[in-house]
Amino acid sequence: MSDQPIRGGRFTEGLAKIAAELNASHRFDRRLARFDVAQSQAHVRMLAARGLVGADEASQLVAGLEQVAREIAAGALVWRDELEDVHMHVEARLVELCGDAARKLQTGRSRNDQVATDLRLWSRDAAGRLVRLAQALRGAIAKQARATIDVLAPGYTHLQRAQPVRLAHHLLAHAEALGRDITRLRAASVAADVSPLGAGALASTSLPIDRDATARALGFGGGVTRNSLDAVGDRDFACDLVYACAITASHLSRLGEEIVLWSTAEFGFARPPEAYCSGSSLMPQKVNPDVAELVRAKAGRVAGDLVTLLVVLKGLPLAYNKDLQETQEPLYDAVETVALALEATTGLVAGLTFDEERLRAAASDDGLLATDLAERLVEKGAAFRDAHSQVGAWVRAAAERGVALRCLPELPGDLRAALDPAAAVERRDLVGGPARARVLAELARVESETKAP
Amino acid sequence: MSDQPIRGGRFTEGLAKIAAELNASHRFDRRLARFDVAQSQAHVRMLAARGLVGADEASQLVAGLEQVAREIAAGALVWRDELEDVHMHVEARLVELCGDAARKLQTGRSRNDQVATDLRLWSRDAAGRLVRLAQALRGAIAKQARATIDVLAPGYTHLQRAQPVRLAHHLLAHAEALGRDITRLRAASVAADVSPLGAGALASTSLPIDRDATARALGFGGGVTRNSLDAVGDRDFACDLVYACAITASHLSRLGEEIVLWSTAEFGFARPPEAYCSGSSLMPQKVNPDVAELVRAKAGRVAGDLVTLLVVLKGLPLAYNKDLQETQEPLYDAVETVALALEATTGLVAGLTFDEERLRAAASDDGLLATDLAERLVEKGAAFRDAHSQVGAWVRAAAERGVALRCLPELPGDLRAALDPAAAVERRDLVGGPARARVLAELARVESETKAP
Amino acid sequence: MSDQPIRGGRFTEGLAKIAAELNASHRFDRRLARFDVAQSQAHVRMLAARGLVGADEASQLVAGLEQVAREIAAGALVWRDELEDVHMHVEARLVELCGDAARKLQTGRSRNDQVATDLRLWSRDAAGRLVRLAQALRGAIAKQARATIDVLAPGYTHLQRAQPVRLAHHLLAHAEALGRDITRLRAASVAADVSPLGAGALASTSLPIDRDATARALGFGGGVTRNSLDAVGDRDFACDLVYACAITASHLSRLGEEIVLWSTAEFGFARPPEAYCSGSSLMPQKVNPDVAELVRAKAGRVAGDLVTLLVVLKGLPLAYNKDLQETQEPLYDAVETVALALEATTGLVAGLTFDEERLRAAASDDGLLATDLAERLVEKGAAFRDAHSQVGAWVRAAAERGVALRCLPELPGDLRAALDPAAAVERRDLVGGPARARVLAELARVESETKAP
Amino acid sequence: MSDQPIRGGRFTEGLAKIAAELNASHRFDRRLARFDVAQSQAHVRMLAARGLVGADEASQLVAGLEQVAREIAAGALVWRDELEDVHMHVEARLVELCGDAARKLQTGRSRNDQVATDLRLWSRDAAGRLVRLAQALRGAIAKQARATIDVLAPGYTHLQRAQPVRLAHHLLAHAEALGRDITRLRAASVAADVSPLGAGALASTSLPIDRDATARALGFGGGVTRNSLDAVGDRDFACDLVYACAITASHLSRLGEEIVLWSTAEFGFARPPEAYCSGSSLMPQKVNPDVAELVRAKAGRVAGDLVTLLVVLKGLPLAYNKDLQETQEPLYDAVETVALALEATTGLVAGLTFDEERLRAAASDDGLLATDLAERLVEKGAAFRDAHSQVGAWVRAAAERGVALRCLPELPGDLRAALDPAAAVERRDLVGGPARARVLAELARVESETKAP
Repeated sequence: MSDQPIRGGRFTEGLAKIAAELNASHRFDRRLARFDVAQSQAHVRMLAARGLVGADEASQLVAGLEQVAREIAAGALVWRDELEDVHMHVEARLVELCGDAARKLQTGRSRNDQVATDLRLWSRDAAGRLVRLAQALRGAIAKQARATIDVLAPGYTHLQRAQPVRLAHHLLAHAEALGRDITRLRAASVAADVSPLGAGALASTSLPIDRDATARALGFGGGVTRNSLDAVGDRDFACDLVYACAITASHLSRLGEEIVLWSTAEFGFARPPEAYCSGSSLMPQKVNPDVAELVRAKAGRVAGDLVTLLVVLKGLPLAYNKDLQETQEPLYDAVETVALALEATTGLVAGLTFDEERLRAAASDDGLLATDLAERLVEKGAAFRDAHSQVGAWVRAAAERGVALRCLPELPGDLRAALDPAAAVERRDLVGGPARARVLAELARVESETKAP
Repeated sequence: MSDQPIRGGRFTEGLAKIAAELNASHRFDRRLARFDVAQSQAHVRMLAARGLVGADEASQLVAGLEQVAREIAAGALVWRDELEDVHMHVEARLVELCGDAARKLQTGRSRNDQVATDLRLWSRDAAGRLVRLAQALRGAIAKQARATIDVLAPGYTHLQRAQPVRLAHHLLAHAEALGRDITRLRAASVAADVSPLGAGALASTSLPIDRDATARALGFGGGVTRNSLDAVGDRDFACDLVYACAITASHLSRLGEEIVLWSTAEFGFARPPEAYCSGSSLMPQKVNPDVAELVRAKAGRVAGDLVTLLVVLKGLPLAYNKDLQETQEPLYDAVETVALALEATTGLVAGLTFDEERLRAAASDDGLLATDLAERLVEKGAAFRDAHSQVGAWVRAAAERGVALRCLPELPGDLRAALDPAAAVERRDLVGGPARARVLAELARVESETKAP
Repeated sequence: MSDQPIRGGRFTEGLAKIAAELNASHRFDRRLARFDVAQSQAHVRMLAARGLVGADEASQLVAGLEQVAREIAAGALVWRDELEDVHMHVEARLVELCGDAARKLQTGRSRNDQVATDLRLWSRDAAGRLVRLAQALRGAIAKQARATIDVLAPGYTHLQRAQPVRLAHHLLAHAEALGRDITRLRAASVAADVSPLGAGALASTSLPIDRDATARALGFGGGVTRNSLDAVGDRDFACDLVYACAITASHLSRLGEEIVLWSTAEFGFARPPEAYCSGSSLMPQKVNPDVAELVRAKAGRVAGDLVTLLVVLKGLPLAYNKDLQETQEPLYDAVETVALALEATTGLVAGLTFDEERLRAAASDDGLLATDLAERLVEKGAAFRDAHSQVGAWVRAAAERGVALRCLPELPGDLRAALDPAAAVERRDLVGGPARARVLAELARVESETKAP
Repeated sequence: MSDQPIRGGRFTEGLAKIAAELNASHRFDRRLARFDVAQSQAHVRMLAARGLVGADEASQLVAGLEQVAREIAAGALVWRDELEDVHMHVEARLVELCGDAARKLQTGRSRNDQVATDLRLWSRDAAGRLVRLAQALRGAIAKQARATIDVLAPGYTHLQRAQPVRLAHHLLAHAEALGRDITRLRAASVAADVSPLGAGALASTSLPIDRDATARALGFGGGVTRNSLDAVGDRDFACDLVYACAITASHLSRLGEEIVLWSTAEFGFARPPEAYCSGSSLMPQKVNPDVAELVRAKAGRVAGDLVTLLVVLKGLPLAYNKDLQETQEPLYDAVETVALALEATTGLVAGLTFDEERLRAAASDDGLLATDLAERLVEKGAAFRDAHSQVGAWVRAAAERGVALRCLPELPGDLRAALDPAAAVERRDLVGGPARARVLAELARVESETKAP
């Protein structure tokens, strides 16, 4: 096969070097090789069933494709800008291996439906991988939560100490967020799980192919797409997956920020494992939480990927436009960034050492129980607004006199008993609250979810 | 009640004017009033059931809240920066109406869980509204598709004429995209449909409230949130809805672009209704497709809203931070922008007049049937690559000689018959293809979906 | 004048209600009124000079325009969707006031060059305002720096204490960033300061107008634009200003984050003024740094505005497209957001109370002087890498034995003297370093810059 | 030197594999090698001048660094995750080459000021490169403009034909936009052109280094940075350059869109050179403007890069945070993307073939002269609004009767003469207008700018 097979008939001139450089996608779309080969095998088998290639040819092509896949996996294929993309590389190599039979490979198929199919297979696979990595991180969080179930910690709003909670309760808040990420990733997988194969360049084909057969062979759970123009021009499934990645990265940035804060001399609540820290090339004493910082920063990268998609897709007329090639790299980058960040965060969380004493001490500041005092006054019949105002005045009086709330003389004695953080936490005995039994119940749920297949 | 009730006890000083201006959210969060009142009514009834307010007090408060809702709906409430947000305005007015009983309104509730609950109710409602508007647009598209079922049109890739299709097939591609938007909007509604009420400021409450009761009363189909820290700090549901809006807006931008193109003198395929065009203040002859252009541009606005959310949320520690206030305006803006764009596009599409003759003529360029020639050669036994190359040479020869493909002497006679666009379209008789029966089947599906409740 | 003057001749039908709602820009573009009137006055005077309107007519129109400006400033003008934008409102009111003469107002001018001129005048003015606000914030920072010139503070990298510096040095780092913002704002002002007036709708005009005259009258320092198609389709100046705002907001987010950190119980380095804090509606003890948090969050909003512009402009053909209307709101929002944030931050910074004792104590941790030890070893002849390694071992030994570095027996006595934070800071006596004289020099420069006109 | 030199003293454990993968930046920061070596050479010479290394050591190190640079350029250096970044690779190799002397390389320098210096040198160089590429594109545009100076073309607003212009005038509009890009790129270069070297990790150094000397040696035109904390934490210069790239890419997307439009069968105004087009793997007749489409799409990629920067930087406390490592890739990607796009667009524009006949015919539609009719009526004394209304009625009448405007009986005979497009264009004889002399004047200016050094 010529180096520029698709120019063969119509064109008199090759692609300019700079145009070829801009055009070539093999540097990134070789990630699709595995799926491209599987797709072509399904396509060839279908062509044989429909009599569009001979049975022998089909066997030869399926075996040849297997060989190409092996060569690519082994790094033995030479990639060249002239062959543009993974599809042309596979086809060209197949021609070398199988001769004329390979010239039938593209029967009833365009690169437009082919690449859409590959991308959907890749996305479905990637979403599954990310779900597993997110569950692994939830598992690490759950393990830390179980190990620290009896450790009190200050709960914050506005980064001001607010009310005492359990450390496990705080940790599990991140597991909840990751749980929603998994929901989104699964939805992205479902969105990808529909076969565009057979949509052709834009208008399907006049040859009698069997779209259901290839969809089944490739395990597309959602069947086939219902409009050929839409099928080749649609990249919603990529957006959905990148969006799911962006929110996951956003969640990881919040966890990363907290680990950075906890690791400061000032908070001192936790120490990341040394294996997840770096030193300074200048300052010999430094142990820096680099991994937590990088995980925090990755939110930017994935947000950027999402924006790229939204800008690229804006205002494109139907059906396929070359612009769509620019949707691939953000997709790969978002998935690979989040995969790396999830895995690194899992190791980081698993290795965190908490300073239970500092956490407990911080949780025991009696200002954190002001709400409890107000709620005790409510139990004694006060309207909440009045109770809030009364306690506010006590807090100010204590602050002005520089004494703890519990030492304020005007505080009624029976309220003093409310100023016990452990009891206060236990009293918050609602679904989603920090009481021990409630936290254990949610912990058990998270653990069981992370173990599900 | 004092103007700054929450400063009453603890603070000695009022908020600086510039700080109050920055802090105040009532200008935008008054959209929540309806939901805030409903929430408070459910909350009060639950407090009464749990004996935290008296039954009489509860009745009085429920009625008072109804009165507040009426006043707000009628524009009779005076909004003031000192009262910050919709919650404080409702409470302050309720105190005026009901006296001391109203001072119990916030028993066992913080503005943190309150605003999260309001926002979820608003988002669920908004998602439903957008689904209806998107179905209405699909309905308008379907109507045009049915009216033009026999009109041929050129299908494009790279904005180059590629293969003939039906205009209806092209129009229905947009209905497919909108169908996916509806799926995303529904998922966003499900994401919102969980009650955070009872999560308190961050750690639930030590009072014996009943979270399930309020969740049921407010119709939360997903029950209650499972972690109080997460419940007040989570805005994923807002991101999900804004993302769904961003993709919808992206789809509308593609449709808008096409209408702009079709309306040019050069394409001349369609004319927008005059009622959706503007003139020029300078050029008397101009009829400009302003609505289509504005719809195209709105993709930028909603993408910006999504970016705002992602930047605001990046790196926030748990649980509630004031930064979350900045998640409201992008949410409202995205929803209201897309609602307006959907409605305007519906009118625009409904009023489009197609120039069937120009469409048909453009679809009849015989270059569009080159693929058919190649596929006919395949039927006669050629390998597709060879057929592609052969037809490419014919196309070049025809171009060089300045004749139509069908007039090229070397074209075998039996292939000449393949050069009929209507027949070529009919031959594409696959699921998702442009053959008449296939298009009618998908059209019927879309019509039935748009009529579903 | 009819309600829809520009439809008068060519159109038979009014704009649909939903289209009018989408189309109308007066809700936001009334901000331009002041500049629109000034522009029209300059335009009319030029028309008179060129004999295109009579001298009497011109006087009448200039006075009438003054009257319209007064009515708008007083809120006396009724705004209506049918009149679309500020330009049509001004013209329609002028027709009411001046009769037929007003029908000459648009001679040789289109709304396309008119709005571009207004937006440039608005942007130039806005940039100047932001420069003044940024200088005011730098002034507040400088004042705090001067007041705390002798307060030591820990310098951080990775939010880990790194080396001791002066608090003033740290504060002035923010003044540097704001100084660069001012450079960008001034560049944005220069970018805006060129007159597109006379570019017409896209191709200038066939009437003998005088572009230089109106440019001079409106004070355009950069003269007139050099290509009419570019002049009406270009919104680079808006992008430049919004970008300058986005980076300013990013800088403010970094300062906001630090104030939030400093205000925590854990850091306890500074207390924001009460007038810039809020309480909690639930927790009576809370004093939350809301203003700092909101300032931090605003970075998201302005980044969103910038993205909106980039998406809207992507792929627009020349010259004017209605999409450009969607560039106005992000421009206004970015400027107004940053203006508010700058002003609020100025008050916040001015009122910060620093806890000098805690700062000094934190800066005195002897781990922060490890680099000094290494540099002393270098002075004694060691290679830096060896010195770094030696000191690292001492740090580890001290940590393992739980003693301060200065108490480590193996530490050579002459090095112990290096462990004085104040002396260590003074030894960093380079341009940009934290030594007292160096900080004072930069402080004086910043002070003088903030006082410049 | 050990593989993890900076962990040597303080750490007992190596970096986890996944952490090392996340941490390592050499895959992208090796781009800095050339600048890192130059910086180190300047640094070593300064150290020698200050007596901090011996003169012989300095010579040895300068030569050794030259050798390292050669090895890197030749691809002979082995890159390893354990050595993290380009700086550690250079140092480690230098230790191998020069032994103990190399252990003095980092005297008075941290990787924090080192990488900031490298990035500024890289950015300055990149901005210069982009300026040259942008001028080359302007040159290609100017050449086409000169070649087509007498070709009329329709000018558009709202993609509706509006008024006739010269094709050269239209082409030069893009040269104007690129001219502003060059202004921004130069500003970004100036922003980068300040030396942070000597700022150390965050607080400069206690060793007597000479910042001015290294700044001079490295050609920093803006001298040295004035605050060490700011110097290591500031990435504004990277944002400025990426922003300049984003607007350039936005401009290219507008040009790309136009080339796509002009290449359609419907417009048919221009044909891209075959060497910048691709065929279809399915449709033998297709000649697709892939390069124009890819150029259009690149706007998304660069906008994404800018968003990444804004998200990463949001809310970072001073001074250096590891998050800053994530600012490198978007910087490189933006610059390299725009460089590639500029170069490809230059070839594409240079090779465009215009269909002068179709352009002229499109420009001759007499609706495009409606404004001229109105302006002629103004010359005869009508108020513009009345003239506009009168001409609008004629246009409608002509449209309803299906005749050209010039054939409308009620059109006064003396106005008929106004309906000549060439004369109409010549009458627009203002600065920035399409009259021949005006276009030639601007063309000459652009040509001279592109030839400037």
